[in-house]
Amino acid sequence: MPTHLLLIDCPDAKGLVHTITGVLFRRDFNIVGNQEFVEPTRERFFMRTAFSGEGDPRPMLDELRQLLPAQADVRLAATDKRPIVILATKEPHCLGDLLLRHSYGDLPAKICAVVANHDVLEPLVQKFGIPFRVVSHLGLERAEHEAAIQAAIAPFKPEYLVLAKYMRVLSPDFVVRWPHRIVNIHHSFLPAFVGANPYRQAYERGVKIIGATAHFVTDHLDEGPIIAQGIQSVDHTFQAGDMAQAGRDVEKLVLAKALRLVLEERVFRFGNRTVIFE
Amino acid sequence: MPTHLLLIDCPDAKGLVHTITGVLFRRDFNIVGNQEFVEPTRERFFMRTAFSGEGDPRPMLDELRQLLPAQADVRLAATDKRPIVILATKEPHCLGDLLLRHSYGDLPAKICAVVANHDVLEPLVQKFGIPFRVVSHLGLERAEHEAAIQAAIAPFKPEYLVLAKYMRVLSPDFVVRWPHRIVNIHHSFLPAFVGANPYRQAYERGVKIIGATAHFVTDHLDEGPIIAQGIQSVDHTFQAGDMAQAGRDVEKLVLAKALRLVLEERVFRFGNRTVIFE
Amino acid sequence: MPTHLLLIDCPDAKGLVHTITGVLFRRDFNIVGNQEFVEPTRERFFMRTAFSGEGDPRPMLDELRQLLPAQADVRLAATDKRPIVILATKEPHCLGDLLLRHSYGDLPAKICAVVANHDVLEPLVQKFGIPFRVVSHLGLERAEHEAAIQAAIAPFKPEYLVLAKYMRVLSPDFVVRWPHRIVNIHHSFLPAFVGANPYRQAYERGVKIIGATAHFVTDHLDEGPIIAQGIQSVDHTFQAGDMAQAGRDVEKLVLAKALRLVLEERVFRFGNRTVIFE
Amino acid sequence: MPTHLLLIDCPDAKGLVHTITGVLFRRDFNIVGNQEFVEPTRERFFMRTAFSGEGDPRPMLDELRQLLPAQADVRLAATDKRPIVILATKEPHCLGDLLLRHSYGDLPAKICAVVANHDVLEPLVQKFGIPFRVVSHLGLERAEHEAAIQAAIAPFKPEYLVLAKYMRVLSPDFVVRWPHRIVNIHHSFLPAFVGANPYRQAYERGVKIIGATAHFVTDHLDEGPIIAQGIQSVDHTFQAGDMAQAGRDVEKLVLAKALRLVLEERVFRFGNRTVIFE
Repeated sequence: MPTHLLLIDCPDAKGLVHTITGVLFRRDFNIVGNQEFVEPTRERFFMRTAFSGEGDPRPMLDELRQLLPAQADVRLAATDKRPIVILATKEPHCLGDLLLRHSYGDLPAKICAVVANHDVLEPLVQKFGIPFRVVSHLGLERAEHEAAIQAAIAPFKPEYLVLAKYMRVLSPDFVVRWPHRIVNIHHSFLPAFVGANPYRQAYERGVKIIGATAHFVTDHLDEGPIIAQGIQSVDHTFQAGDMAQAGRDVEKLVLAKALRLVLEERVFRFGNRTVIFE
Repeated sequence: MPTHLLLIDCPDAKGLVHTITGVLFRRDFNIVGNQEFVEPTRERFFMRTAFSGEGDPRPMLDELRQLLPAQADVRLAATDKRPIVILATKEPHCLGDLLLRHSYGDLPAKICAVVANHDVLEPLVQKFGIPFRVVSHLGLERAEHEAAIQAAIAPFKPEYLVLAKYMRVLSPDFVVRWPHRIVNIHHSFLPAFVGANPYRQAYERGVKIIGATAHFVTDHLDEGPIIAQGIQSVDHTFQAGDMAQAGRDVEKLVLAKALRLVLEERVFRFGNRTVIFE
Repeated sequence: MPTHLLLIDCPDAKGLVHTITGVLFRRDFNIVGNQEFVEPTRERFFMRTAFSGEGDPRPMLDELRQLLPAQADVRLAATDKRPIVILATKEPHCLGDLLLRHSYGDLPAKICAVVANHDVLEPLVQKFGIPFRVVSHLGLERAEHEAAIQAAIAPFKPEYLVLAKYMRVLSPDFVVRWPHRIVNIHHSFLPAFVGANPYRQAYERGVKIIGATAHFVTDHLDEGPIIAQGIQSVDHTFQAGDMAQAGRDVEKLVLAKALRLVLEERVFRFGNRTVIFE
Repeated sequence: MPTHLLLIDCPDAKGLVHTITGVLFRRDFNIVGNQEFVEPTRERFFMRTAFSGEGDPRPMLDELRQLLPAQADVRLAATDKRPIVILATKEPHCLGDLLLRHSYGDLPAKICAVVANHDVLEPLVQKFGIPFRVVSHLGLERAEHEAAIQAAIAPFKPEYLVLAKYMRVLSPDFVVRWPHRIVNIHHSFLPAFVGANPYRQAYERGVKIIGATAHFVTDHLDEGPIIAQGIQSVDHTFQAGDMAQAGRDVEKLVLAKALRLVLEERVFRFGNRTVIFE
């Protein structure tokens, strides 16, 4: 029997669960899994419901929109693998891990292309038969470079962009075109060590644990909503370079986890925070 | 506005969430938090719903029992702190941690008494003004000793027994009187190293991680449903005694966590497994 | 056979290990355990050597000082439990955990007294028979209050001060009297969320992991050398208060671990960093 | 200046460190890093010393062997990347991760070939330009199959075999030819859930944490010396298949970590245990 995923984000009100499950019940759909959350400080309601049944679920959306509070965001998850484009620079570990998972079906996405501002990753990407585009930033103004990046991405019509160690800051003009549709991996336990050289900063500060943070990209560098974080213990024997090496495994795992959460429609955003139904 | 907790455990059926939330809605109760789970292999439905409202929630239970599948277990959580009795032997770390949390309100229970088969913990328990009973096993048959333990416990009418490093095996005759109402902390990462001297076993096996397991006690030693587990890294410099020392912090945290889960009515049991709504 | 602990911190030079172990060998001491580290960026050598033997080890120190580079810091660890005084305010979890460990011999220190700027912790401290001094800050200038605190501490002649959730900032004038002899527990994963209300900050930022940091206190608030850190996962269901509650277990474990490391002479400081021989 | 690695494993005796560092000092070698351990129960001494200097370090070995207790194992680590052959069956995650690390220089080994008893991994291995050999077990006695495996491996003269989810049990006759030179990844937190289907066993037991174990292969299935272990939290929503999926990331990290430890000569074995100098 076909299974669908219903996603609702709306102001909280009495009886919401009863109303929503009533629509499902009357249309002969069976709830397989159900997760809800009410954010108390903002009185906002989030629901992620997996249900099965023979009927077409799409007509249900209009009925729900009429019954739920105004401004309710009601939708069905897409059933095919979502197209993504990966942006990278020179480091292979996050990109390689995503390509590998993609190759054996462990990434719920279709990687359409990799766009990079250097060409060193081309041999790696070609191994996996994925289109690779180099858009060098040399000699270009930032606006020009970003326009070229945008042009390289556009033909693939991705739903999400993934920054797999893409080492250039994206301008607000670029980001605004991909609202909460860019996922970045930051090589620190945000909000500690924002900006460049976090492992150097971590070494100088003498921390005993380092981390990595996957987040949506917003106008404000390193300040978008956090999706996932991971950590790794270090000690005094770690120089900054050793921390960077140790950090690579955390970075690749945290980015892969965040992508899975986003692509399986487990992430709701509100303000600068996320609700995650694992 | 008063808040209540509804707990349902029943065979799965279509429309259960709609039915249950309808009863709440019509009685003018507002759902504050809702967690559900359907165990697919056994088609069993579990629900833990926090709701608020002015009315008396108790009449709702009969209505729900009529609407839900036969053999539904439907109940409201008690609203006062549940009475518990702790059994111990000689080790102070788990017992002390529970007494301390209890003393400053961080344990959702009322510790009525501590019953031990040795007297070394008496000074510790007395610091906290909790009744302490010694029931020595010396010179007694197991049945006699357990009868004496039972007699020492009985006046306190506890809802749960907590084995805080109680080092004697309880007989099936004893356990059957407290079905899924005895919580034990086992000093290993079960099912590894069942039985006595797990740290000695862990040392001999050369493991790199040790752990602790809190579980309900059943007839079968160390095989009851697991509630919580925790771990701690070790290395070759740890002798068996060092592992035991390192394990004490894990043991006390895991036991305290498991107790909180049980006492906040977050644990459903089915077969030899648990569903835990954190 | 008596065991001793030799601690050396000096500029690096060729042959140091051979020189030092030669002195031990010729005096008929047997090395039981040996840890060394050379900090490459600053070319500094650290060594912690446990050795056993019948002789008096103290004459060896002068011989070592003559053989080692100038400015070598060479000493033997004290063999009795070091006296400490704990400073606290209102929160019982870190203080209680230390008192408990102390009561059953799991803290390698002698707690001489607890000094607090409120009296709410007095009943807890009295349970354990430890002197408790209240030095209220009400109506006092900071310098006056700190002088009173210092006066309350002085009779106990502690080697270390432990800030177990002492919620007042100490002035440089106070700190300079206890150079690297004050251990603080900060309720965040430093350097994230310095200053007040870190759990509120963590909630606002929407982090998925919270932490705690034990560090030496220096003139610069929350910026002293880090001794130990620990973490705890959180999710969107955690309000700031829930994070604070979840953080308490991490705080008490991290503070206890840091104290154990310091008191077992496992911590060397250089600059704003620490070398830790676990 | 060239750097070398000296590895010593011998019965404990007084003055060993002084003797060894004396040989280095007189030959004008400078110790860069030094790790020692004395296993107290067996009175065995282990040392791993990195040193630099212009001279040829090899003549030093004979001098050391004469000065140290009989049966001392004294050697210099090889300075080039060690050749390894990977054995696999059908699962790509561990193999792919090793190939990827190898491709960008993050594995301190040379992967000479992959030998598998199925052909499904051939396209993955070919992407990386590594020889792939299929040795099907169909229609062969175990001894015949193992002889064919051995023949496929032999031309590559590997120092270690890595079982990256090779799903067949190796016979004692095979294992004896590779004493402590076969590294396996077992998909459980050994010694829990030995044998087949550990995730099914973990599901049935209702554990809250799963793990993976990398170990040397010995005659006794799943009982060889443990090199590294890792864990992953699970809950009641995980069916056996979900646990297997969640376990894949732990498996690949633990195997990669164990291999790095072995190849960087950080692992000493004694009895069924390991000393690991991280």
